Amino acid sequence: MPRKNTYIISYDISKDRQRARAANTIKDYGIRVQKSVFECRVRPNAFLELMAKLEKIIDPKTDSVLGYLVCEACFKRKQAIGQNTVLEEEDFFVI
Amino acid sequence: MPRKNTYIISYDISKDRQRARAANTIKDYGIRVQKSVFECRVRPNAFLELMAKLEKIIDPKTDSVLGYLVCEACFKRKQAIGQNTVLEEEDFFVI
Repeated sequence: MPRKNTYIISYDISKDRQRARAANTIKDYGIRVQKSVFECRVRPNAFLELMAKLEKIIDPKTDSVLGYLVCEACFKRKQAIGQNTVLEEEDFFVI
Repeated sequence: MPRKNTYIISYDISKDRQRARAANTIKDYGIRVQKSVFECRVRPNAFLELMAKLEKIIDPKTDSVLGYLVCEACFKRKQAIGQNTVLEEEDFFVI
């Protein structure tokens, strides 16, 4: 079984509804560290599964999702300034 | 001379003026890939220099800046969906 890695997922999503759906989807895989940035500690197949789900949610003409693998050695060098608790966006816009 | 690495810099900055100053500062070090996410290909000391500059710009009580090292091996696994050109925020709010 491949081991878990940390992935940084960030997005620019223009419509509230899609942005809320994306945020709620990513929350099943990791924690929100900024309004549109999440840290997900998952196995590679779960990361690919998540990106496939997000691909179905966003409008590729206007929106963007990026996913970066950050290995243990890289993650140790993470630097954070300021707030580390995230003010939840109004992302409870569920149908 | 330590070699260059890729660093992902992302921010949540509440005030327009500080956000514009932060974006203009980071642009000297890398490219904007999303509204509040940049990829900076720099040496470690330049990364630390940038983070120190950002620390002086933001309000630590309300704002957040994150910096992740993404090594070559990690960066090769980057996944991107949708738009890869960034609609510049109104970040030309310079004194």
